[in-house]
Amino acid sequence: MSDVEWSQVEKEVAQEAFERAYEREINALITEVRERASTITELDDTWLLHDFLSARRHQLDGKYDYKYSVLIFVFAQLVKEGWLHLKELEGLEKDKLTKIAALTRM
Amino acid sequence: MSDVEWSQVEKEVAQEAFERAYEREINALITEVRERASTITELDDTWLLHDFLSARRHQLDGKYDYKYSVLIFVFAQLVKEGWLHLKELEGLEKDKLTKIAALTRM
Repeated sequence: MSDVEWSQVEKEVAQEAFERAYEREINALITEVRERASTITELDDTWLLHDFLSARRHQLDGKYDYKYSVLIFVFAQLVKEGWLHLKELEGLEKDKLTKIAALTRM
Repeated sequence: MSDVEWSQVEKEVAQEAFERAYEREINALITEVRERASTITELDDTWLLHDFLSARRHQLDGKYDYKYSVLIFVFAQLVKEGWLHLKELEGLEKDKLTKIAALTRM
């Protein structure tokens, strides 16, 4: 699915939904890091936090890829993980919404 | 300087000093991680903490190398960085103490 298959309105809906999900996930991450760090009492906990951050950084880098060719899959993953609600994607054409909904059930 | 050049008494002094320095540095690290984490408000801060942990983990892995062949250098570094006091190495033979003291001034 290329750039041209997204109308201007759809692009605006997509951009906003994408940013909203990103903000939510980032805020949850920050909260979790602060909580985890506050319970550190020994070196192993410190390296567990380091491993956690390494994994999350890698995941986030890969996941938030705003390309129209993969956006359907990105949105399906975000809905599945709870960072986005399907209704926040209203404004996209029906075909895209159906695909996203179907993917979230896989 | 090999294993055989350290007497039993020296080995005990060295082991205790080594562990004491390690404990101090680890405790300081834990305190710093907790403090840094408590001030995180955005994603960049989170990745700065991650970078900090990556660097410290690498440094610590390399630094705390309990081998008699390198222990003079390890102690000199620990004294230089403030994790150990020269007087905590009393019990080592004079030649070793002189070398460590000289290395800390380099």
